[in-house]
Amino acid sequence: MLDAEMGEFDLIARYFTRPAPNAVLGVGDDCALLQPGPGLQLAVSSDMLVEGRHFLSTVDPARLGHKALAVNLSDLAACGAKPRAFTLALALPAADDAWLAPFSRGLLALADAHGCELIGGDTTRGPLNICITVFGEVPAGQALLRSGARAGDDLYVSGTLGGARLALEVFRGSLTLPAPVFEQARARMEQPTPRVALGLALRGVARSAIDVSDGLLGDLGHVLRASGVGASIDRSVAITLVASYQELTRANIGFDDEMALDCVLAGGDDYELAFTAPPSLRDAVQAAAREAQTPVTRIGRIDAEPGLRLLDARGQPLPLPPRRSFDHFAG
Amino acid sequence: MLDAEMGEFDLIARYFTRPAPNAVLGVGDDCALLQPGPGLQLAVSSDMLVEGRHFLSTVDPARLGHKALAVNLSDLAACGAKPRAFTLALALPAADDAWLAPFSRGLLALADAHGCELIGGDTTRGPLNICITVFGEVPAGQALLRSGARAGDDLYVSGTLGGARLALEVFRGSLTLPAPVFEQARARMEQPTPRVALGLALRGVARSAIDVSDGLLGDLGHVLRASGVGASIDRSVAITLVASYQELTRANIGFDDEMALDCVLAGGDDYELAFTAPPSLRDAVQAAAREAQTPVTRIGRIDAEPGLRLLDARGQPLPLPPRRSFDHFAG
Repeated sequence: MLDAEMGEFDLIARYFTRPAPNAVLGVGDDCALLQPGPGLQLAVSSDMLVEGRHFLSTVDPARLGHKALAVNLSDLAACGAKPRAFTLALALPAADDAWLAPFSRGLLALADAHGCELIGGDTTRGPLNICITVFGEVPAGQALLRSGARAGDDLYVSGTLGGARLALEVFRGSLTLPAPVFEQARARMEQPTPRVALGLALRGVARSAIDVSDGLLGDLGHVLRASGVGASIDRSVAITLVASYQELTRANIGFDDEMALDCVLAGGDDYELAFTAPPSLRDAVQAAAREAQTPVTRIGRIDAEPGLRLLDARGQPLPLPPRRSFDHFAG
Repeated sequence: MLDAEMGEFDLIARYFTRPAPNAVLGVGDDCALLQPGPGLQLAVSSDMLVEGRHFLSTVDPARLGHKALAVNLSDLAACGAKPRAFTLALALPAADDAWLAPFSRGLLALADAHGCELIGGDTTRGPLNICITVFGEVPAGQALLRSGARAGDDLYVSGTLGGARLALEVFRGSLTLPAPVFEQARARMEQPTPRVALGLALRGVARSAIDVSDGLLGDLGHVLRASGVGASIDRSVAITLVASYQELTRANIGFDDEMALDCVLAGGDDYELAFTAPPSLRDAVQAAAREAQTPVTRIGRIDAEPGLRLLDARGQPLPLPPRRSFDHFAG
């Protein structure tokens, strides 16, 4: 769709026209053309980012460019798909070089790091909105699905959780963090790392996977419903998953384990992977983590009984408050 | 990306969860999975629609749902690709049943008419924005491209042009139309017909194609640049392409041939196909038009000399004003 007043073609040419050697046809025709290799399926995901909802208006445009693609790559990671290409649709209040130059730089740096080609899209004038559709390849039948979890599976999470939530609480004024911890948390919120290598390494190992975009409780809930199972999470392990746990508990900022649990269970925007695998594959999971240079932590197990349970150190169930009441920062 | 406050899942379940028998995996996981048939390539296009720019806030939501998909299907048509699937990313100011019900009805009715499955997407709160990415299949090497026009080709346009422009001029208050002509024009603007069947029938016949979304001059310009050629358009034929030409010239509304030329050359939003084919295939072009039940008109020819020329009835060049000065309605 053209938008001549805005000089759409100038914009595309200046910031977004790149060689796309893997695509059959890239930017510049009515459609791009893709052809997955023999035996490969195309994994497709779309995410739309809106100012004030998914990012603050003050965010560095380079970090925003990174994040806009990262959240999409995270969906590919959760399926075990290898990134190949993406389209970018962009509504902009104005064609502003001072914004477009860093935005495209951040976006394309991450794209290049993953060999993910920009093959097409759309630009128009309007309230700032970034919509990316990403394409990855996965051998037929090998995609990691939400529906594959089985009772007895171990439950894992990659990396750390709650970093984005910590930064958000600082921006909200409800938390003060030591400067280095805040910078790490802020980078997590603004420039998340999609766990693409881990997703690829987990093909044939994990039985189910999802990316943690909305908070572990909510996202794990999708896996449990899709798989018709339940889960138990070890509280004492879970709280140590919070980003910068040691620094937070040692700093004299009133950060306690309930806050840590909030961050881990209900913090969103982390883009780690939650996945399940049979206990017989524990070594294979650790090998995948090493291969992907991404730490993973076993935080619980999948149960036949539906629902989610939090267990204390002796394996006894603890009360799990409703998700919306997870807010120990507000007081 | 989740958006729990909005009840995203309720919305998706209620309005947008449909069976997707052709996709390997449809709505409900981190990614959808597609696998083009053997020897087929996947044609991909994204279009973003913004209120006030691509549609009026007063438009019937059912027509808007139709249009949002139609403009994407039109890109597939221009490539000669068969629609298979699409993703929908939607930013909404509020989760309003009175809007969502007709919007999804209009959208999915067109999708069903083309066997085009909704396989995934995203919903979020934000200024109204509709971003669709569409997927079609085309045999490898048979996609109709902008770059295929050759000197000596005939130049064709499907259907009529300028209908959407006529409706826009009425909404702007610069034109009054007889009621039946206005209703036709308005339907054209709000509920365009993507020329999918014609695009398919033109595979192996047309040498190049584009959909006319921004106006014939601008869109044909892309074909000419991509192909390294020029074109001559027969003015006396072109003016008859305007929607409801007979009614307009007979009605006593001051509609003249200069206005008709404006509508045909610079009116946007019509979603007809402009295409070229060698003169030796004139019968094949007409057979394709019959097969697709879509009239096509030969309006000129492709020249070796770059640039676009308008010819009078004796084949003599007429002055072609710059595109931006095409506005005989404003006076």
